[in-house]
Amino acid sequence: MAACELESLEEALEAHLPEAELREVRRLLFGRDTEKLDLPASAVEAAHERHFELKGCRFDAAQEQLRPPRRVRVGLIQHRIVLPTDAPVLEQVTAMHNRVAEMAEVAATCGVNILCFQETWPMPFAFCTREKEPWTEFAESAEDGITTRFCQELAKKYNMVIISPILERDELRSTLWNTAVIISNSGNVLGKSRKNHIPRIGDFNESTYYMEGNTGHAVFQTQFGRVAVNICYGRHHPLNWFLYSLNGAEIIFNPSATVGALSEPMWPIEARNAAIANHCFTCAINRVGTEHFKSEFTSGDGKKAHHDFGHFYGSSYVAAPDGSRTPGLSRTRDGLLVVEMDLNLNRQISDRWSFKMTGRYEEYAEELADAVRPDFQPHVVREKI
Amino acid sequence: MAACELESLEEALEAHLPEAELREVRRLLFGRDTEKLDLPASAVEAAHERHFELKGCRFDAAQEQLRPPRRVRVGLIQHRIVLPTDAPVLEQVTAMHNRVAEMAEVAATCGVNILCFQETWPMPFAFCTREKEPWTEFAESAEDGITTRFCQELAKKYNMVIISPILERDELRSTLWNTAVIISNSGNVLGKSRKNHIPRIGDFNESTYYMEGNTGHAVFQTQFGRVAVNICYGRHHPLNWFLYSLNGAEIIFNPSATVGALSEPMWPIEARNAAIANHCFTCAINRVGTEHFKSEFTSGDGKKAHHDFGHFYGSSYVAAPDGSRTPGLSRTRDGLLVVEMDLNLNRQISDRWSFKMTGRYEEYAEELADAVRPDFQPHVVREKI
Repeated sequence: MAACELESLEEALEAHLPEAELREVRRLLFGRDTEKLDLPASAVEAAHERHFELKGCRFDAAQEQLRPPRRVRVGLIQHRIVLPTDAPVLEQVTAMHNRVAEMAEVAATCGVNILCFQETWPMPFAFCTREKEPWTEFAESAEDGITTRFCQELAKKYNMVIISPILERDELRSTLWNTAVIISNSGNVLGKSRKNHIPRIGDFNESTYYMEGNTGHAVFQTQFGRVAVNICYGRHHPLNWFLYSLNGAEIIFNPSATVGALSEPMWPIEARNAAIANHCFTCAINRVGTEHFKSEFTSGDGKKAHHDFGHFYGSSYVAAPDGSRTPGLSRTRDGLLVVEMDLNLNRQISDRWSFKMTGRYEEYAEELADAVRPDFQPHVVREKI
Repeated sequence: MAACELESLEEALEAHLPEAELREVRRLLFGRDTEKLDLPASAVEAAHERHFELKGCRFDAAQEQLRPPRRVRVGLIQHRIVLPTDAPVLEQVTAMHNRVAEMAEVAATCGVNILCFQETWPMPFAFCTREKEPWTEFAESAEDGITTRFCQELAKKYNMVIISPILERDELRSTLWNTAVIISNSGNVLGKSRKNHIPRIGDFNESTYYMEGNTGHAVFQTQFGRVAVNICYGRHHPLNWFLYSLNGAEIIFNPSATVGALSEPMWPIEARNAAIANHCFTCAINRVGTEHFKSEFTSGDGKKAHHDFGHFYGSSYVAAPDGSRTPGLSRTRDGLLVVEMDLNLNRQISDRWSFKMTGRYEEYAEELADAVRPDFQPHVVREKI
């Protein structure tokens, strides 16, 4: 069975396990069952016509006496590129805008309040090529590029917060960044969050194109809750999630682009661990499909040059602070995951488990300050002989 | 199906999934397949006669030019208590010593170099009762208590490093600690590592008995590699794993005692995430069985008083830095997991993924120092209206 053939883990389990065992296996793998979220028939129909998967899930929280529920609907969109990678740049971008527009419309029908797209969503993930042209032409201003303007329209039209990860061109500084633009439901650009950790691995030659972000761990207060964006490779860095959380993030989005054998078994682990450790919701989004490039390129692995670098396996999901998670979207198809969450769950789980209260952060601050000194002496105990 | 009836997740999958799908599901869930480790027939037979599960796995690494392989065999023992919890203290401890001795002998036959037991292994996990007597009588000196002396004999006899998590009595300071004693294969006590994070949740009333540890993040240089011990609840704290790793740990053990619906879905996530994020091996060990106590107790959940607090689900496993993991031991039976690992894998994966090199720890040290100040202002961006 080729790696891209399995539609989803959950479907494979459901197809073969007897009911009683399936229930236990799901509990062990995914935690407390998420409820299915009923979505409007018109949305289901539109998704079917537009050839994308539509899934709805709900995380409940207990009713409190002093706080009303704070129910928010989050939408995650994963999609493949629309045109071939050698089509004119503007045509590629426009085709992607159109595709996402028809998916966002369905999200609106589903009552989504915050919608997040995948990493550098209006372009192919072309950094494997190490060519600067034409890929740097996809870079645009976070404040008034065509993609930001497109998202502002969506945000206003649907009264949605939009998180739009793009390749950013910073004209003043003559710099490219990998950036998520956060657009308020008013249509205003609320701010931006740049990718903090840049991979240097295999086909992810991103350090050729942009540097580590300089926006720290900003959190954005929206009408629907406080959100932060940990872009792609930052999901491997527990401190990155943690600092967003320390700044008050209730939902941390992780727009990504990742392929293959090495990262796929890590995919269900890292964002979920972050939700558990930080008493918050995390949303992991990955693109789908295989992207072909005209010029061949090598992958730093001694193998022959080729024209694609593997299958982006989708599988976008949401993890909750109680360790439960939604099923993943398909490994092969475009999809929209709509998740209703009651943000009160974060504090409820924090009060129960108290990971932060027991975190001893003062001592870690000291130990870490010590560890980064060039003359750091690790604490190693040796046998006296 | 009651929570304790499923023998193991892996067996349920193997029993029902067709071969091709099973292979893909296993890859998605567990990463690269671990090889089966061939164990001596005499060990297999002894385990059978002594009624415990014996499993062997192997993690390989690539052959390097300048470093020979550094193959180490690690053994994890999970077991239930032997006598009822109201038997005389010394009889309970002795019965547990005898049980572990017969399991350790099999570990020796399997060539184990480093053997680790579960949290507070010579006693029932009685902290749910909140009674001080007789449970504090199980506390003993880390340096020369009967359990340490027992382990020193094992260590010398079998040329093994032994990690022995106990309830420690610190006579000088009139304090109890939850402590792992690290005993060199020479038989000498190499040192001790105290539990850094103490739970205050449900039946885990441990803060009633002992305080947060004061041994920091010591790492122990043994003949077979550098080891550290992150006890139980510390697995929920990514910074705890991280600091052990920053001090050079190649294998981090996580002896635990945990039950039930809330923690079981987290169990496969946290130690494995730590192995990935820190480029090291992690070993998660949990006791098995249900422990009954004579006096009834409540669990702070509004429910009626009862005599046990649920099923310890075992499921001990080892995770590797490449995101792969061994199958878990049984959810219900005593067991010994023997894992051969080539420690060279840590640096190989670090060179490939570079999470630490890209970690930007200097900036985190500053941010964390700032965040622990009482006048900390979180970085929250608000819309200007």
